[in-house]
Amino acid sequence: MQAAVRLALTGLAVLTLVLVGASATHSDQSKPRARDLGILLGGTPGPLDAITDVAGVEVGHITLIAGEGRLVAGQGPVRTGVTAILPRGKNSLDPVFAGWFSLNGNGEMTGTTWVEESGFLEGPIMITNTHSVGVVRDAVVEWTAARNPNLVFALPVVAETADALLNDMNGFHVRKEDALAALDNATSGPVAEGNVGGGTGMICHEFKGGIGTASRVLPPELGGYTVGVLAQCNSGTRRELRIDGVPVGLEIPDLHWCYDADEPPAREWVRPVVPRCGEASAGAQPNPLAGTGSIIIVVATDAPLLPHQLKRLARRAALGLGIMGGQGENFSGDLMIAFSTANPGAAEPRIVTLTMYPNQWMDALFGATIEATQEAILNAMLAAETMTGADSIRVFALPHARLLEVLRRYNRLATH
Amino acid sequence: MQAAVRLALTGLAVLTLVLVGASATHSDQSKPRARDLGILLGGTPGPLDAITDVAGVEVGHITLIAGEGRLVAGQGPVRTGVTAILPRGKNSLDPVFAGWFSLNGNGEMTGTTWVEESGFLEGPIMITNTHSVGVVRDAVVEWTAARNPNLVFALPVVAETADALLNDMNGFHVRKEDALAALDNATSGPVAEGNVGGGTGMICHEFKGGIGTASRVLPPELGGYTVGVLAQCNSGTRRELRIDGVPVGLEIPDLHWCYDADEPPAREWVRPVVPRCGEASAGAQPNPLAGTGSIIIVVATDAPLLPHQLKRLARRAALGLGIMGGQGENFSGDLMIAFSTANPGAAEPRIVTLTMYPNQWMDALFGATIEATQEAILNAMLAAETMTGADSIRVFALPHARLLEVLRRYNRLATH
Amino acid sequence: MQAAVRLALTGLAVLTLVLVGASATHSDQSKPRARDLGILLGGTPGPLDAITDVAGVEVGHITLIAGEGRLVAGQGPVRTGVTAILPRGKNSLDPVFAGWFSLNGNGEMTGTTWVEESGFLEGPIMITNTHSVGVVRDAVVEWTAARNPNLVFALPVVAETADALLNDMNGFHVRKEDALAALDNATSGPVAEGNVGGGTGMICHEFKGGIGTASRVLPPELGGYTVGVLAQCNSGTRRELRIDGVPVGLEIPDLHWCYDADEPPAREWVRPVVPRCGEASAGAQPNPLAGTGSIIIVVATDAPLLPHQLKRLARRAALGLGIMGGQGENFSGDLMIAFSTANPGAAEPRIVTLTMYPNQWMDALFGATIEATQEAILNAMLAAETMTGADSIRVFALPHARLLEVLRRYNRLATH
Amino acid sequence: MQAAVRLALTGLAVLTLVLVGASATHSDQSKPRARDLGILLGGTPGPLDAITDVAGVEVGHITLIAGEGRLVAGQGPVRTGVTAILPRGKNSLDPVFAGWFSLNGNGEMTGTTWVEESGFLEGPIMITNTHSVGVVRDAVVEWTAARNPNLVFALPVVAETADALLNDMNGFHVRKEDALAALDNATSGPVAEGNVGGGTGMICHEFKGGIGTASRVLPPELGGYTVGVLAQCNSGTRRELRIDGVPVGLEIPDLHWCYDADEPPAREWVRPVVPRCGEASAGAQPNPLAGTGSIIIVVATDAPLLPHQLKRLARRAALGLGIMGGQGENFSGDLMIAFSTANPGAAEPRIVTLTMYPNQWMDALFGATIEATQEAILNAMLAAETMTGADSIRVFALPHARLLEVLRRYNRLATH
Repeated sequence: MQAAVRLALTGLAVLTLVLVGASATHSDQSKPRARDLGILLGGTPGPLDAITDVAGVEVGHITLIAGEGRLVAGQGPVRTGVTAILPRGKNSLDPVFAGWFSLNGNGEMTGTTWVEESGFLEGPIMITNTHSVGVVRDAVVEWTAARNPNLVFALPVVAETADALLNDMNGFHVRKEDALAALDNATSGPVAEGNVGGGTGMICHEFKGGIGTASRVLPPELGGYTVGVLAQCNSGTRRELRIDGVPVGLEIPDLHWCYDADEPPAREWVRPVVPRCGEASAGAQPNPLAGTGSIIIVVATDAPLLPHQLKRLARRAALGLGIMGGQGENFSGDLMIAFSTANPGAAEPRIVTLTMYPNQWMDALFGATIEATQEAILNAMLAAETMTGADSIRVFALPHARLLEVLRRYNRLATH
Repeated sequence: MQAAVRLALTGLAVLTLVLVGASATHSDQSKPRARDLGILLGGTPGPLDAITDVAGVEVGHITLIAGEGRLVAGQGPVRTGVTAILPRGKNSLDPVFAGWFSLNGNGEMTGTTWVEESGFLEGPIMITNTHSVGVVRDAVVEWTAARNPNLVFALPVVAETADALLNDMNGFHVRKEDALAALDNATSGPVAEGNVGGGTGMICHEFKGGIGTASRVLPPELGGYTVGVLAQCNSGTRRELRIDGVPVGLEIPDLHWCYDADEPPAREWVRPVVPRCGEASAGAQPNPLAGTGSIIIVVATDAPLLPHQLKRLARRAALGLGIMGGQGENFSGDLMIAFSTANPGAAEPRIVTLTMYPNQWMDALFGATIEATQEAILNAMLAAETMTGADSIRVFALPHARLLEVLRRYNRLATH
Repeated sequence: MQAAVRLALTGLAVLTLVLVGASATHSDQSKPRARDLGILLGGTPGPLDAITDVAGVEVGHITLIAGEGRLVAGQGPVRTGVTAILPRGKNSLDPVFAGWFSLNGNGEMTGTTWVEESGFLEGPIMITNTHSVGVVRDAVVEWTAARNPNLVFALPVVAETADALLNDMNGFHVRKEDALAALDNATSGPVAEGNVGGGTGMICHEFKGGIGTASRVLPPELGGYTVGVLAQCNSGTRRELRIDGVPVGLEIPDLHWCYDADEPPAREWVRPVVPRCGEASAGAQPNPLAGTGSIIIVVATDAPLLPHQLKRLARRAALGLGIMGGQGENFSGDLMIAFSTANPGAAEPRIVTLTMYPNQWMDALFGATIEATQEAILNAMLAAETMTGADSIRVFALPHARLLEVLRRYNRLATH
Repeated sequence: MQAAVRLALTGLAVLTLVLVGASATHSDQSKPRARDLGILLGGTPGPLDAITDVAGVEVGHITLIAGEGRLVAGQGPVRTGVTAILPRGKNSLDPVFAGWFSLNGNGEMTGTTWVEESGFLEGPIMITNTHSVGVVRDAVVEWTAARNPNLVFALPVVAETADALLNDMNGFHVRKEDALAALDNATSGPVAEGNVGGGTGMICHEFKGGIGTASRVLPPELGGYTVGVLAQCNSGTRRELRIDGVPVGLEIPDLHWCYDADEPPAREWVRPVVPRCGEASAGAQPNPLAGTGSIIIVVATDAPLLPHQLKRLARRAALGLGIMGGQGENFSGDLMIAFSTANPGAAEPRIVTLTMYPNQWMDALFGATIEATQEAILNAMLAAETMTGADSIRVFALPHARLLEVLRRYNRLATH
């Protein structure tokens, strides 16, 4: 149980807090995932079909949901959170080799300059909303210093996507304590998906998005290694959404976001782009915010890849994103980072012995990354539930039954 | 008519020359292209659905086909050529802004270091086989010097893919004169596709590949600009081939390369990977060379993009490749370059005035690039014809009728 | 007067606050700068010999100095601050073209992913200590949102160097209000140097470092443009320090940091690397922390450079650093960013008209950047005063008289 | 004896061949090098003070000198050549880890895309003139294929600088056989410097340049590894030339190139920039070609560095260049590549065991690279002799006696 819901009380004293979405639902993975629905996307998943299939990886979420109705900056409503991915778990500060890639750099992932230079990721990867990157970053410094009294300095990796539509993002509701809690919550085992952690208020292909994960296992003759992917999906247009090659977005063009209130949104920039629920215009017009969003994709493996090989893996995650219909849209920060849990002790200040996976065998890792990325994005949408957030804006979940109907119509669910 | 066939006579005196594939068929575009078959892939193409829809762009091919039977290094058989893309046509030496991207750098594109530094592409883009990059490069220097008596030095852009299976690539059959002829052949208008120019001996998703092209036109409110793509496709596995999202490669798993001769191939490395035609093993086993190959993708536009924006475009070509099933395989050099014909005179040694397309509008260009890249790859396969080359190795064309049958079965050709 | 000193009171109630270094001295530039001492380093400076010679650029500092004696984490002593550089001044949110470079990426500069992608720097550049990057980043978001009610999201650029030795860096003494004050303090005109702003507690070539600035003006025939540099110098070894080519570091090998107290430093990691003042060992042994530090170099110009040209400029700042003796040491985050104030309105969402400086003329800009970078680093050392900070550690200022004596001995101060 | 002089006869039948500079002089290293003159530049060199101090590295030169007088394109005069650096010697095709860097990309280094992607340099590094990159590249393919009958394709690394002034560079005098000879000539032991190999016709800081080399050995406690550098120096301005920090270029402003003939140069572009020898204007005016040139710097080490660490080393070579006065001028292709001979067998297609040098110790390697780069550039100038080439243009050697006099005047040769 990696998810926790904190009722964000700050400045919300006069509001009635309403918990949207039961946390139990988020964390027990009782909801069907892609594979449960018969959507396979190639390859062989690990036991959990999650990034935590890579031994040692731990994931923690803190989910902040509070308030409803009209947005009052600094008060809410709050639909946000923090997700922590710890490559070797929270009891190890041993760095891992890593590499990253930016498909479209309209986003932030702090700490990447040192990842690129040193080849090492020296702590957790945190994902939160765009305007909380700072507080989460400094919290990781504090968390690291508390565990290492000789810490001189730290350069944490914190990434983001913007929950600006559903969350009072300019209200800065994520606090240091939330980031610490996400770290402390982190466990191995199943990973909560959908409206949880950093993904709480996110939107994916104009459906409700959030956190999703998946994994693939290589055949024994290629080492039997695992590739795990975790995505915080807040990107993509409906029009381009394809699932297993099927143009789902064109087939389900309705269910667009809208506000469910009598008075229009408080935020000026929201008004022209979000119609009132039930009105004729809802979903009938092109959506000016389509493609505005971002996605963070984290690729973990236990294959002994060197930093330059991990960059290769990160780049393949972009291909998986592209197959789902992501186009690296201008307002989308599509950032990928890959790390390997192999080679413990590689960062020690002495000449160390390593193992390296051969470039010649990497195609299987590339394929695994592409497949797991697709499935992680899909799982994010499948797990996410319809959410009503700031300014009473509602974003709809991808409807499972309609999805399956469309896939069947395109001759899927039976083949390969 | 941009293609020309030179009968490469070097050292082939004792062989009977057999022209495989009529050049007339290649160059008159009488063969159905994707669009003719009803495969649309989104967007609005330009009049020619070719890179030459971008005004000023000229393309020239020289196709070298000679000899048959067992390979004798230095003698043949020859199945190769050169393709020249001239951004402003062969009568202009005015540089264009450009940017490039390497999805998987197992390939060569000379001149990119200066493209990256200066932002300019200062001459043609040439594409040939891997082992003829040098001769073509120096030929471009000579061609440039002949047109500019004050030339101090040139850093030509020459890219490659390996026709090692069908062509005597270690025989170095491309000569300086061939490169010059490709340049001199260059014209605007329809572009020959398939087994022509640099694409002559290439293999794409384990079908016969080669040169393909396509274009897209933006809506007037976004400037009405054109994006044209030309690909030399020699990459991809059969297994992963998807066309419009349909798993065509899984549905047409046969038609694998084989040698059509009594004695096995002369080349040692070929023998274990190419079965004899008609033998049970043909196509029944995994192909150890699957994914060995490369693709060069050239993106042209008349939208006024700056160099850093053209890099963004080049990166989107990789997404189009990924949707077709390309995975940036380890042995595949998947390199993209994008240029803009806007802003003539930008390289003059004075403070110049430019126009710039806004980042905020670039999604349409991204989509156009992704669509045109897919269609260019598909057109390469559709135009290519079954070829028998070195060591009597035969590579089969993608069968149009079977393709259409598969697409129909997956509910395509009627929708969107 | 861009500098302000806030007495950081947080948790320091029981300590007597002692202001180390009079702020008046810092900000009125009454102290001699390189040029005043006859150290010219080539080229022609602008009127202020400062980054603010580039019209529109504003700089603001907030300097936090409080407490003395033994470090108590979270209490102090405090020797830190924030420096804000606003490319078009604090009354303009109009982005500027920008490019960046990492000589050695052991540092943080947030926001660079979007600078690289978009070509634009969309707000101020902030410099602070390593562990305050987060709070400063989120403060810039808040500052931006306050000025632009339609702000959807912001990706601020915040850079850092570590004042871990002199400052209670794990005490997180920089607050949101400090960052806002640095922004609000920003003005054109002379720039305070030395122990101010983000540079307050910094160490440069094992002398007291901090903020320094310089500028160069191009000859009229090359446009008469200005290049301004601001450096926050916290990097370099004594051994390698060269000034105008003279091995000053070898000639002034003493004056090493030490703690001036009866009891050893509270911090474990500090004890082995900082001897007691006056003890024989002080300065006599190799310094294990030598080269541990970082430098942020900001290059501003009004020459109309495009983003890819600004990356070229940023790379030249690394050469200036190298001439001073910086080697991009492993523990040094040596990051450079360059921007151009030309082309206002370039980021508007329409096709815009720009001017571009020719690559062919850029050598003068390269030389200017290299010279101004050297002088900015030197000015930082010349303006900085001996400081005693956390754990009573004292870092000595570069002694002007001895410096001049050395330069004279090497035949400088009279030539070129 | 790695150098060989081929009298390039092509088209020169009616000319009397005049050998400029005795090859014996070049290859026996009897000329004083920096160290012989007392110019030490820090650190401890290896036994040869050459790149060949890194065990296994072999260097071969082919020097092409033929003809004199007025340039006739395609005939001569010829002042060019090829230099081959074989990381593990010519009897090993085992790849080495490598990384590269472009300080200013106005140059060509083929094969770098695969170096960047794979982390491996799979063959020799060749250096020649700009317009012979192609022929040398294809020659390396042939050379490789001859040694590996199962070679499918090769992506050779060939770099260049332009000898356009002294050599009939548009005459394409380097032939395939020359490249093969440079490879076959390669040996360990002393490396010929100056007017040899690829450096034959090169110009460095407006003095005669060419090939130079140097090395440094780390202290035993850091592994005792060696760093060797080889530079082909054709870059830099006289004005900025500094040696050990002394402004030698300002102190020796004369000795500028000139043509020693009655009739002006045949080449139009040369006339305005090369005065007649002995005329008042010679050297008195700014040189419009100053800074036009390039430098290739090859860094070899036996320290077990991974590819991303070798990129760090390559970047440090740029700092050494900068200290000498190189500014990465616009018309200068300043490209660096670093490789490690450690970890033999790392490229085998299986999971391999490696050793890795710790990032934390790399400062010594950085310093060694910076020092050896400076010394290699200086050695190139010290070994080069005054040369008269195409169009009777004469470029003067750096005069040793005057250099020493200047250094003494600036208090060098006695200190550190």
